[in-house]
Amino acid sequence: MFEARLDQGVLLKKLLEAMKELVSDANFECSPQALSLQAMDTSHVALVQMTLRSDGFAHFRCDRNISMGMNLANMSKCLKCAGNDDIITMKAEDTGDSVTFLFESPGQERHSDFELKLMDIDSEQLGIPDTEYSATVKMPSSEFQRIVKDLSTIGEAVLISVSKDGIKFSTSGDIGSANISVRQNTNVDKPEDATVIDLQEPVSLSFALRYLNSFAKASPLSSQVSLRMSKELPLVVQYRIVDMGEINFYLAPKVDDDDEMDNGNE
Amino acid sequence: MFEARLDQGVLLKKLLEAMKELVSDANFECSPQALSLQAMDTSHVALVQMTLRSDGFAHFRCDRNISMGMNLANMSKCLKCAGNDDIITMKAEDTGDSVTFLFESPGQERHSDFELKLMDIDSEQLGIPDTEYSATVKMPSSEFQRIVKDLSTIGEAVLISVSKDGIKFSTSGDIGSANISVRQNTNVDKPEDATVIDLQEPVSLSFALRYLNSFAKASPLSSQVSLRMSKELPLVVQYRIVDMGEINFYLAPKVDDDDEMDNGNE
Amino acid sequence: MFEARLDQGVLLKKLLEAMKELVSDANFECSPQALSLQAMDTSHVALVQMTLRSDGFAHFRCDRNISMGMNLANMSKCLKCAGNDDIITMKAEDTGDSVTFLFESPGQERHSDFELKLMDIDSEQLGIPDTEYSATVKMPSSEFQRIVKDLSTIGEAVLISVSKDGIKFSTSGDIGSANISVRQNTNVDKPEDATVIDLQEPVSLSFALRYLNSFAKASPLSSQVSLRMSKELPLVVQYRIVDMGEINFYLAPKVDDDDEMDNGNE
Repeated sequence: MFEARLDQGVLLKKLLEAMKELVSDANFECSPQALSLQAMDTSHVALVQMTLRSDGFAHFRCDRNISMGMNLANMSKCLKCAGNDDIITMKAEDTGDSVTFLFESPGQERHSDFELKLMDIDSEQLGIPDTEYSATVKMPSSEFQRIVKDLSTIGEAVLISVSKDGIKFSTSGDIGSANISVRQNTNVDKPEDATVIDLQEPVSLSFALRYLNSFAKASPLSSQVSLRMSKELPLVVQYRIVDMGEINFYLAPKVDDDDEMDNGNE
Repeated sequence: MFEARLDQGVLLKKLLEAMKELVSDANFECSPQALSLQAMDTSHVALVQMTLRSDGFAHFRCDRNISMGMNLANMSKCLKCAGNDDIITMKAEDTGDSVTFLFESPGQERHSDFELKLMDIDSEQLGIPDTEYSATVKMPSSEFQRIVKDLSTIGEAVLISVSKDGIKFSTSGDIGSANISVRQNTNVDKPEDATVIDLQEPVSLSFALRYLNSFAKASPLSSQVSLRMSKELPLVVQYRIVDMGEINFYLAPKVDDDDEMDNGNE
Repeated sequence: MFEARLDQGVLLKKLLEAMKELVSDANFECSPQALSLQAMDTSHVALVQMTLRSDGFAHFRCDRNISMGMNLANMSKCLKCAGNDDIITMKAEDTGDSVTFLFESPGQERHSDFELKLMDIDSEQLGIPDTEYSATVKMPSSEFQRIVKDLSTIGEAVLISVSKDGIKFSTSGDIGSANISVRQNTNVDKPEDATVIDLQEPVSLSFALRYLNSFAKASPLSSQVSLRMSKELPLVVQYRIVDMGEINFYLAPKVDDDDEMDNGNE
């Protein structure tokens, strides 16, 4: 038996909105510690990894580890039927072929249940090594979302350069070129407006803008986003979910003129 | 001579929005008692019946009964040109081939008139017998609209079941199944939030969701909707228009597994 | 060297939105007096003329007259990346082949620069003679925008008639006909709500609605629009930009039944 009750059901709705463009089918892994998911995007370029710790739920019971394969578009259809104030409960039998979502309105005058068929999905869990990154930038998630959206109108790839003073996003395309610089900025009224740079050594890497645009769909989950970069390592784009966990997106850098060797990673 | 002046012109705008998806052409019947309309939807499955009583108008003159055939899409185009605060007057000669809509802005600084050509439309008025229904449910119209919209993402038909405790909407489709239950609920701060059930005997009938979705376009006309159901009778979905009249939608039940006889009504 | 700094960068954004539907490519003419532009629309029927006086800029330097040919759709893409509160600076070398737009957020925490390639565009400047018009109507720009939009749902051309009492817009089409009259109205709480008519002699001219709809995209630039008309002369639709300049649209009248001679201007 798996049962997890989430008072802030809207978090699950936002998570699905953050993932469903990138990933079509995925296994939700249930263990006594957490509800988690790891999946490659449909073009096998980006990786999504999400964890919701069991202690963040109002109620969480997982008798034995199960894996629930779901089509994220269908799951999103169900969750769209939940109100933003609804309490959401997920339920599944250990050996069942379906999962049930219960939605309760705050005043209890409306109850809904949606039963979704489960799927068998082949997947291998990739081990993601713990790494010390050369540069970590925390910045407002809405600012990051706007920058990658704006630059997408000009070019297809973005060069992200981090120095101790700030982070610079550069692109170029047929119509011209663009640079957007955001300064380190900790002297703010609201902590969510801060831009904080933690730098071991300057780093400059190039990424496909269309994936960053997809990742940025997670912005409603958190007012801040963290970007972690090291030469030749995938970029990590992380959104923390208060008191519950996080969603991480991984994207390998593109080879560009700044790289000295051709690693075939185009 | 027919002339009817409506201080709250926005009502006529909302009525057209409620009908124009369902009905393409219809006769507006003018009598000294009322402006009314009855029409089948384009696929001849659902029936719309609207009545605006003459005493609800600021001024109403109808020298003899006339029938004005109009294309509702064209009429809607005209009415979209009226501001939401405008006073709307309809005018027609007894034997003319056009109807004129006058729009006056509240401060009288803008006057508009739109002359629309009338059409000859064959139609027979169906007699709708007065019936005692097994179950009548009054509920917030926005709630009903949301439920039929939500369920439409899962299935094509909805089973509506009314018991003394509440009303349940159920559907199923390729991706799974769904149930939404709304409890009787009269203990509310605002009367428009109440759900009231008047039950002679429990009833459970199945309907095509796409028609219910069309009916629900009338929600802006009234904060509450009434659903009336009896076994083997068409469902009545009613929106009252304060001090003026009402719009009723009729839809025959689908034959489903709960029915004992095949009445060919699919 | 050309450099112009505009504290209210949003004005430049709105100007582009006002022109980019009508004009595809145009030369921005820079002189010590002004930044200006004159261009025919893509179908060579309407003329746009814009002037931003140098004294309206926070900083303006123009060492010698230059002409910068730009694709307005591309320029608009760049300007969409500027925030509404951003300060915008345009920069170009006298003999360069690109123009640079700098965007500074109000708190200086974000700096962006966009370099746009310039184009060679053939264009001749038309001299627009100073004329005394028979009728000048100042009215709320939102009202004008709404009227031409509303009438576009009914017909393709509008007859604009100005008398001492008001201005009347008339159209007709397949579904019927429409007239919208706006009265002279100076007794208003807010000056931007006034409709003021300055009449030498009554005038009545017909114009293609699709161009008026394009012109009305300039409404965000000014709360009032001026329409200037004289028999057989192009209509002038003018939006003033406070403390900076103006944008004028010119459109030749259509020949209609009210005209006595066929000037082939269809």
